[in-house]
Amino acid sequence: MATVRAATAPVLRTSLRPSSARYCGRIGGGGGATSRMTGVASVRWKSGPYGYTQAKALVFSQYGEPKDALKLHTHSISPNLPSSSVLLRTLAASINPADVNTIQGTYGAKPTFSSLIGTSEPSALPGNEGVFEIASTPPSSSSGLVKGDWVIPAKTGFGTWRTHAVAPLESVIKVEKEGLSPIQVGTVSVNPCSAYRMLRDYATPPLREGDWFIQNGANSGVGRAAIQLGRLWGYRSINVIRARENPEDTKALKDELAALGADRVVTEEEFLAREFRDAVAEWTRGSGGGVRLGLNCVGGKSAQNIAKTLGTSGTMVTYGGMARQPVALPTGLLIFKDLRFVGFWLSRWADGDTTAKARTVNEILDLIRQGKFRDTPVVDVPWNWETEENTLKEAVQGTLEGFRAVLIEAEASYLVHLFNMRSVAMFKELYLTALLACEFMIA
Amino acid sequence: MATVRAATAPVLRTSLRPSSARYCGRIGGGGGATSRMTGVASVRWKSGPYGYTQAKALVFSQYGEPKDALKLHTHSISPNLPSSSVLLRTLAASINPADVNTIQGTYGAKPTFSSLIGTSEPSALPGNEGVFEIASTPPSSSSGLVKGDWVIPAKTGFGTWRTHAVAPLESVIKVEKEGLSPIQVGTVSVNPCSAYRMLRDYATPPLREGDWFIQNGANSGVGRAAIQLGRLWGYRSINVIRARENPEDTKALKDELAALGADRVVTEEEFLAREFRDAVAEWTRGSGGGVRLGLNCVGGKSAQNIAKTLGTSGTMVTYGGMARQPVALPTGLLIFKDLRFVGFWLSRWADGDTTAKARTVNEILDLIRQGKFRDTPVVDVPWNWETEENTLKEAVQGTLEGFRAVLIEAEASYLVHLFNMRSVAMFKELYLTALLACEFMIA
Repeated sequence: MATVRAATAPVLRTSLRPSSARYCGRIGGGGGATSRMTGVASVRWKSGPYGYTQAKALVFSQYGEPKDALKLHTHSISPNLPSSSVLLRTLAASINPADVNTIQGTYGAKPTFSSLIGTSEPSALPGNEGVFEIASTPPSSSSGLVKGDWVIPAKTGFGTWRTHAVAPLESVIKVEKEGLSPIQVGTVSVNPCSAYRMLRDYATPPLREGDWFIQNGANSGVGRAAIQLGRLWGYRSINVIRARENPEDTKALKDELAALGADRVVTEEEFLAREFRDAVAEWTRGSGGGVRLGLNCVGGKSAQNIAKTLGTSGTMVTYGGMARQPVALPTGLLIFKDLRFVGFWLSRWADGDTTAKARTVNEILDLIRQGKFRDTPVVDVPWNWETEENTLKEAVQGTLEGFRAVLIEAEASYLVHLFNMRSVAMFKELYLTALLACEFMIA
Repeated sequence: MATVRAATAPVLRTSLRPSSARYCGRIGGGGGATSRMTGVASVRWKSGPYGYTQAKALVFSQYGEPKDALKLHTHSISPNLPSSSVLLRTLAASINPADVNTIQGTYGAKPTFSSLIGTSEPSALPGNEGVFEIASTPPSSSSGLVKGDWVIPAKTGFGTWRTHAVAPLESVIKVEKEGLSPIQVGTVSVNPCSAYRMLRDYATPPLREGDWFIQNGANSGVGRAAIQLGRLWGYRSINVIRARENPEDTKALKDELAALGADRVVTEEEFLAREFRDAVAEWTRGSGGGVRLGLNCVGGKSAQNIAKTLGTSGTMVTYGGMARQPVALPTGLLIFKDLRFVGFWLSRWADGDTTAKARTVNEILDLIRQGKFRDTPVVDVPWNWETEENTLKEAVQGTLEGFRAVLIEAEASYLVHLFNMRSVAMFKELYLTALLACEFMIA
């Protein structure tokens, strides 16, 4: 389990195999998924009669806990695609904290409820991140997309927790699949993009080679991405983690992050100790502005200590609040040290400029292809056609309750629908924080 | 006292008349100041023998309370000025909280201690704001400055609490005195400049006509300046004040700020009430971004409520912390509302770009000349040549202890050395806050 330590957790991995007996009566016949292992890679999914595609989707019609709110909805998709649309087949999709908060109704962005996929009540499709294969295009399409191409959602709110989607052309971004796995492409949009933009867009002036940044929650998906990107760009990083249960595990995690490119790794305890700032002064000696950028996903004392660690005119970017405590800013830090405190919300960035998102995603995928950026560790959640609704609901809900699934060896067959999660513990805390934070949004 | 309500307090006003008996032995004779009332306006100050000028300055050699640390030092200035320097005579100088904090050693900027004016120990000269008259220039000066011109310090740390100064040309900014009083020019650099820059430089994108801003401590010097400048530029303001001791006084203060141009004035109590945000929504309906800028000199709950009042992507600028409590920022406000929290320190701005400071000062002085900007209310602190050291020290110290001097009618004679103060109560709180804030600077 060493490679999925802390930043990752459960995986369910599913083969989507339509059960004609249960699902296909209405649409008149069974479809079938050909295993990827059979070698008939181009016919992994068989449509139903008259060219209809059978699809499943997790949906919700009212806010609540995932276990109560989510329903597994089966529907069929006509072969006559709307013009300027494509039929997508899901290769991999991730579960991120924002998705769960969206279902709970505590998130900053509200989904759209509709009856588009034939649910009895208007419903929303959760899931913001994933990778899809083009299953078909309209006969006269001049979109540049062809069957077999891979795409990712252009914006959040796409609804990725489904086996298929009919999507307007402008709602997807094509990615070059060459040399990449679905997992790599299906997990690029959230954590690596967040780390990329926070490192690039917030320090004033921008970080240059040799500059230092500091981050807490450094073993999170974002943290690991920031370490790697920072290293590639010549930035130096101070990384704060929570101590593990025993010193050996802490040492192992420190070594793991160092292997990713972390310059310094300290525990929260070491971070809060009096000597820490002397150590930072020593490390950053000769570097112009001291520590110039801080990434905060914890809040409370940890965030305050990041602020104290920053050099004059430094910037702290908050993108989470695991400690469930606000960031307390002494007036002097604001006035005399000229610190700037801002927040980063991936959705705002990604939805604001699709071209920039495409550029960022492709740049990161290039790094992955070149072996310069390691995959976000994930745990598969298999989803077969026969998978019970409850299994899927529990996979989502479980992350909130400390549920930790065992890594199941993939069945290596059929369509793979993959969920990417952070560590259960972190996830749980992020969830609680987002809930807390959202109180201020709703009030 | 209505016109000096809250934003102002003590004034000592002094005539500088050298006592030859006491001060002039060493330099060999008495000087004299001709009253401005005699009509010999061009000879208000007589230099000592051999052209030496007798001068006094408040100085300190170690940090402490003003009453303990300040000394009144008398010295003489040679008529042979260093090249590229001018001899200045002080017309007016203000006491601002930063000056007192500097003496206490709790401020963000440390003064330089030197023996330049002949103190037995190296000493520093407090006072950052003031207006001076050119008393003489070197024979071959091509500075463009002539005797009688008015100048203000280009940067902080000038040391304005003195009767005369020998200053390098580049350390002063010439102002057109036409139509202005020393008090107007001597109080332009701190409060009006702070309000000007905070309103202009921090909202992203910059405020436009019709946009709303909110501020607490709205009856402070900065607050009054912000109301007036905002009104001139077409910005609309929500102004938060602390309730006075009785409803009539609160009403009177509200009316006073409304007369300056405040769109809305509310007490802290009204501000924190549940209905307030509905009211704001009503007021700002139709205005794009809701309330786009907040100016905070209080901290604690008041600051947090300003943050909650701001619209998406709003900015809160902190320039003081009267409540002596840090600004607590819920994670959701940072992430989902995209709020930005920054600090404003006048010294950083003013010392960073002297040209910009000159431009800002001249623009505000123009507004004053045109009758569009009312003077910062001040209380005079007369300083005669015979004024005892203790009187001056107490004038400074008193502001920290709730001392409230009576407004003394100026003697209308001799050189006027004027101190501008905010309200005693506010001053006291700002002092305590700065002290608190500085703990984080020093630690």
